[in-house]
Amino acid sequence: MDTLVLGLDGGGTKTQLVVAASDGRIVLATAGAGINPMDNSKWRENLEELLLAVSPLHSSIRFAVLGLPGHGEIRAVTDAMDKAVSEYLPIPHRNENDVRVALDGAFLNGPGTLVLAGTGSMVLAKGSEGRITRAGGWGEIFSDEGGAYWIGQLALRRASQALDGRLDAPAFAAALLSEIGAQDRDWHDAMMGWCLSRKHQRSEIATLARFVDRLADKGDETAIAIMTAAAAELTIQLKTAQRLAGHIGQAWSPAGSVFDSSTVMHHMTRMNGPCQPAILTPVGGAVWSALQTAGIQPEDAFAETFTAELVRAFTSP
Amino acid sequence: MDTLVLGLDGGGTKTQLVVAASDGRIVLATAGAGINPMDNSKWRENLEELLLAVSPLHSSIRFAVLGLPGHGEIRAVTDAMDKAVSEYLPIPHRNENDVRVALDGAFLNGPGTLVLAGTGSMVLAKGSEGRITRAGGWGEIFSDEGGAYWIGQLALRRASQALDGRLDAPAFAAALLSEIGAQDRDWHDAMMGWCLSRKHQRSEIATLARFVDRLADKGDETAIAIMTAAAAELTIQLKTAQRLAGHIGQAWSPAGSVFDSSTVMHHMTRMNGPCQPAILTPVGGAVWSALQTAGIQPEDAFAETFTAELVRAFTSP
Repeated sequence: MDTLVLGLDGGGTKTQLVVAASDGRIVLATAGAGINPMDNSKWRENLEELLLAVSPLHSSIRFAVLGLPGHGEIRAVTDAMDKAVSEYLPIPHRNENDVRVALDGAFLNGPGTLVLAGTGSMVLAKGSEGRITRAGGWGEIFSDEGGAYWIGQLALRRASQALDGRLDAPAFAAALLSEIGAQDRDWHDAMMGWCLSRKHQRSEIATLARFVDRLADKGDETAIAIMTAAAAELTIQLKTAQRLAGHIGQAWSPAGSVFDSSTVMHHMTRMNGPCQPAILTPVGGAVWSALQTAGIQPEDAFAETFTAELVRAFTSP
Repeated sequence: MDTLVLGLDGGGTKTQLVVAASDGRIVLATAGAGINPMDNSKWRENLEELLLAVSPLHSSIRFAVLGLPGHGEIRAVTDAMDKAVSEYLPIPHRNENDVRVALDGAFLNGPGTLVLAGTGSMVLAKGSEGRITRAGGWGEIFSDEGGAYWIGQLALRRASQALDGRLDAPAFAAALLSEIGAQDRDWHDAMMGWCLSRKHQRSEIATLARFVDRLADKGDETAIAIMTAAAAELTIQLKTAQRLAGHIGQAWSPAGSVFDSSTVMHHMTRMNGPCQPAILTPVGGAVWSALQTAGIQPEDAFAETFTAELVRAFTSP
């Protein structure tokens, strides 16, 4: 009894919640929709639904760590999230930025740099003395360079520049029009109309990053240039965070869908050395961090057991 | 009488309507709020209000030309605007993109290139045979390079890069925080919160362009770099439109608030030669175009008379 911990990793498109023991066994695993208040007006309901599933276990959970998107960035958003968690999770807990739990999962107690490039982008670097520095990740209006939204927006920009004659890239533009189902219409009507009719504009523009990556794999020069520019932006964030932390050249770990791109990985490796795969996924980082706070010593095989159980929990039919 | 024409120039922030005679005399002049359907949900009411003022003159107006923001770009928007105009203005008329009437005003019947840089940006080039080519101006999501929104967004980006350590520009970042009234708060809370709490996000971010220009005048290198980049983007649009029209090096005319910047004008002139000031303002272009369509020959002193009357009409107390 009283020896379990809860970890939650909330993202823009999905959220994972896990209750685990010190040996890595998972007692409860559940997943739900994204809970980013910046682009999901139903984040509170989605969070409530997940946390209510834990109610029967409250008396057995010693501590919970929740990684929440946007937490600690805008005071009003942070306050609203803290309030919602307190309401639905009346047990000892700590709320953190979701990228922080990803960092904890990637390197556990050790130093290291986490480079996140999902819909947005952000870099956190942790020195050996535990201090964490950050670069990037201030939202898609003026930041998030190298993330999937940034890539998708740049793809639309390059396609429009090709279509009105500023750029010589007809194949890239034709492929993009085909991707958004608009090859037989006025291109400006099609492209502007597509953007404006998106229900979730931010995440749907971000989805174009996968299209750009596929084109890059086929050798399209404009697509390669975009993915290479993304790697360059992520590298600037990486090197800035490491310089501020005083740990230039420390191990780095990738997180987020943009790293599914072999073009991005190739350039990141060339500029920053080989990456070190994360020891635990972000939700594992939250669980690990909760164990630390609760003063519970994880058993030696914790990471292997937890990872295997997590895969089973979230892939079983 | 049947010898009057109507011209309208609708923009993002303001709209001018004028009824004039062939000698340049202005019979009616009225101004109202912006009517851009992309960022003003009240565009229809604003347009209705202006057009209703003309009702008593309907029988005397032979033709009307209306320059409408976004017209001809997205079919649904174009259709909605055409429908609204037909409803409130039951006389012969033609609706055009507002940049087209600016081009007509700048060069009357002659060839020339209009470079517009207001909140958005766009270039139209007209060859001696009358064919018009266009570059840029496809909206702020993926185009409008060099316009005030583009400048304001880049300013926010550079400030955030300075504040998280990616860029060495502390004075620029401090000035921007002061500009948005946020110098005593967490900078990310302040900047992200400022963007998200804007009632008219697009036009308020665009307003930052004037701040960047003031800093550039004081010698701030980051501000100078941003305004220089804007001039470079506008030059790419200018040269593209001229190349497509087959008239490289033809006279160009500036329009829009971004050209109030001496830094932008300096670089535009250096890269594209001296500009040729517009003969008539955009609303004058609409009136001129309406006279042409109606087969009414403007008198010799039309431009001088019209311009003087226009200044009087819109500046009298």
